Amino acid sequence: MDTTAEQLSAQVEQAQHAFEAARASLPAEREAWLVAIADRLESSSEELVPLAAAETHLGDPRLRGELLRTAFQLRLLGAEIRAGEPLDVTIDHTDPNWGMGPRPDIRRVNEPLGVVAVFGASNFPFAFSVIGGDSASALAAGCSVVHKVHSGHEQLAKRTADVVVEALRSAGAPGGIFSLVTGEESGTMLVDHPLVQAVAFTGSTRGGRALFDRAAARPHPIPFYGELGSTNPVFVTRLAWERRRDNILREFVGSVAMGIGQFCTKPGFIVVPKSQRKEMDQVLQDAASLMPRSEMLTPQLRRSYGDSLVELRDRPDVEVITGEGGGNEPRMTLLRTSAETICRSPEILEHEMFGPASVLVEYSDDSELARVANLLDGQLTTTIQGEVGEDVDDLRRVLSSKSGRVLWNGWPTGVSVTYAQQHGGPYPATTASGTTSVGTSAIRRFMRPVSYQGFPDGQLPEVLRDENPWMVERRIDGKRSAGRGT
Amino acid sequence: MDTTAEQLSAQVEQAQHAFEAARASLPAEREAWLVAIADRLESSSEELVPLAAAETHLGDPRLRGELLRTAFQLRLLGAEIRAGEPLDVTIDHTDPNWGMGPRPDIRRVNEPLGVVAVFGASNFPFAFSVIGGDSASALAAGCSVVHKVHSGHEQLAKRTADVVVEALRSAGAPGGIFSLVTGEESGTMLVDHPLVQAVAFTGSTRGGRALFDRAAARPHPIPFYGELGSTNPVFVTRLAWERRRDNILREFVGSVAMGIGQFCTKPGFIVVPKSQRKEMDQVLQDAASLMPRSEMLTPQLRRSYGDSLVELRDRPDVEVITGEGGGNEPRMTLLRTSAETICRSPEILEHEMFGPASVLVEYSDDSELARVANLLDGQLTTTIQGEVGEDVDDLRRVLSSKSGRVLWNGWPTGVSVTYAQQHGGPYPATTASGTTSVGTSAIRRFMRPVSYQGFPDGQLPEVLRDENPWMVERRIDGKRSAGRGT
Repeated sequence: MDTTAEQLSAQVEQAQHAFEAARASLPAEREAWLVAIADRLESSSEELVPLAAAETHLGDPRLRGELLRTAFQLRLLGAEIRAGEPLDVTIDHTDPNWGMGPRPDIRRVNEPLGVVAVFGASNFPFAFSVIGGDSASALAAGCSVVHKVHSGHEQLAKRTADVVVEALRSAGAPGGIFSLVTGEESGTMLVDHPLVQAVAFTGSTRGGRALFDRAAARPHPIPFYGELGSTNPVFVTRLAWERRRDNILREFVGSVAMGIGQFCTKPGFIVVPKSQRKEMDQVLQDAASLMPRSEMLTPQLRRSYGDSLVELRDRPDVEVITGEGGGNEPRMTLLRTSAETICRSPEILEHEMFGPASVLVEYSDDSELARVANLLDGQLTTTIQGEVGEDVDDLRRVLSSKSGRVLWNGWPTGVSVTYAQQHGGPYPATTASGTTSVGTSAIRRFMRPVSYQGFPDGQLPEVLRDENPWMVERRIDGKRSAGRGT
Repeated sequence: MDTTAEQLSAQVEQAQHAFEAARASLPAEREAWLVAIADRLESSSEELVPLAAAETHLGDPRLRGELLRTAFQLRLLGAEIRAGEPLDVTIDHTDPNWGMGPRPDIRRVNEPLGVVAVFGASNFPFAFSVIGGDSASALAAGCSVVHKVHSGHEQLAKRTADVVVEALRSAGAPGGIFSLVTGEESGTMLVDHPLVQAVAFTGSTRGGRALFDRAAARPHPIPFYGELGSTNPVFVTRLAWERRRDNILREFVGSVAMGIGQFCTKPGFIVVPKSQRKEMDQVLQDAASLMPRSEMLTPQLRRSYGDSLVELRDRPDVEVITGEGGGNEPRMTLLRTSAETICRSPEILEHEMFGPASVLVEYSDDSELARVANLLDGQLTTTIQGEVGEDVDDLRRVLSSKSGRVLWNGWPTGVSVTYAQQHGGPYPATTASGTTSVGTSAIRRFMRPVSYQGFPDGQLPEVLRDENPWMVERRIDGKRSAGRGT
């Protein structure tokens, strides 16, 4: 049964109350809530992983790893909010000699936005769904969350939500701080609801753009953090190709195969020097044939993957190296085209095939590497396969202007949850290129700065008082000062 | 002559080239460009101030002060980018024991967006116009700027732009990194131009919202940093009223009068305990009569101010304390209504009268203070007039949820350029409540994070290399480490 409009409104209002109640909690308490969720998630893995496997066809080992990642992420974000980094506490004392005239006492801290709507992604039923990075960072920020379930794993989502709600309850969090809605209508109702203050979304460019437009058209527009489409091209220098061709090809195939090609960071293109085809194709065919096959996440995804594959394959300037077909368990498919073709039809670079397919782009002249790079639209990732000491500055600069993360001799699939991670990029990779949806910086999306001017110490919010009772890192009069234990 | 579509396109393309050329410059060079502009602005004040006075009717002393503020702002933002704070350099070294699996080396830095369109405001012809906070922070970020002139001070804008361009040229900045366009059409063309990567705007809610909608509707939406409407209410506790009533009223009138009421932070409402009217009204009338009068910025503003004043005055539940009329040099007008009226018709709180008018809102019961506060829409500022030791936590919390800056016993007019300043707030105060348009943090609006994974040290962007050649503050493996001289 889909959530009705009345139910949804009641949930959002309860989420607002919970948000307000949670304002009184200390960061250490919020950390405890996240840790409680992580603990209970792990202790529920014997129930949740099989549910996930049945609904998503992703294998057991992968799902177990994903659950652990999700629990780790909750703990890391919890520790981060306790340490206070996302608060960005900045204190300017009065200064009678300030260059533009006497400076008042101004103290700034990031405060949570309110109720956040989070849309689950189909391809990571733990890490980017019910209590994935978006929900975890919104809760860490001090927001409440209403989660829109992805129809691809509804049973898992409901059970996961039970686990989350129970963990939050047992840890003493306000009731209603996390809840879940189902049904497509629920998604648009959430984006439109006046109490919802931000939206986080991971999914297709088409679906995400429609919701982005809706969020922007509200009487009061709200931030929409959408992670949409990306083809994550890999650029191979001639030198790397000469030295490591077969390894590069095998690793490339392995990266394309991850999650049956259903990763937002799957390398959709690899740009390589033109070379002897016979040997190279054999390496690719052998590697592809070894890749595990399975059903895709949903029958709809299988269909749209097939359609997008056929569309590209049928171009006269594209040929098939290996693959195609396989029914419900698609074979890995590798296509080939040339850099000249890309330069004539750069829209090919935006052709996302969400499934186990990718395209080799052959260049004849080294200058074509940068030319192809320059034609890119916004990407989550771009990659250089090169050799140490090669001058790749120009290529690296072009790629950094097109993407949120640039890799060297690695593969874009696999996004570590760290302090420096940037999972985002210019549109259409995301609708908010200044933010990341993975890593500790993801928390800041759900906060906004408030400054307090001229307050007596005792009437300031605790975190801003001189004695630094929360022991957070601060910037004082332009200089960083130590927080906890430094 | 308005800028033609062809001229505009050529300028934007030149700005893109200049942006790319400037990527090779060090932060210290960019600081030198900003300092050069500041120097030349100051040495041109004898020419610029009279031009500004003639076009805006703002007095000489105010304009001189504003020019100095603008120069100070350029130098402060320059120093900030040299110190590297806006780069937010974050380094995670490889960690084989990272909780979710081995962590690769990931290094993140904020990089400039590209060409930025800046719209000048009418009311601060220096500080929020041609080379005001928006242009200065975009240049500090490493972006190029195309500035859309406000028609209210076109001659000044052109001369200021000459000064800026000449300063940049003499300091060695790439040609075209700053230019200026005129005409209303130019504004929409800029927002639509595919090379423009962000827009900064200060002005009316209506005009700003139209451009925001346009920026969001682009094939590739871009961030739109709009500072729009705000009524900046002031809340006076009963205790403060009893102890300091007359002083509060006089200071309030002084704040309303600043710039002939044409400040985006003008207190449009003051919520006070109901009390003896005769004495109070006398204080207000006396204070108001002493305020300087002059022409407003433009005849259109005079008209729309008059219209909005009449609209509110003509409500049956609003009365006039003093003022009205005055032809081209409007008298300060103070209106009165009750907290009950506001609770019945909260839309009054959003009624912005851009000129020397404000509204007293009288409350009978102390609980009405928080009730009125709760009815507010997004604001740039809110203010508490209270006494040291009073428990204002609840009120402060409500106000912080409604505004970007909360003041204690001060007045919102006057926005110091500092590290902790927050000039922004929830819609309609701005279209991007997570950002500020004043203070050093304004720079970050024009950058986005890029992370580099697995790069050999020598192939990384310089700023991310281990030896820290730019001597910037960094966060390494989750811990802050010293930058220059700390």
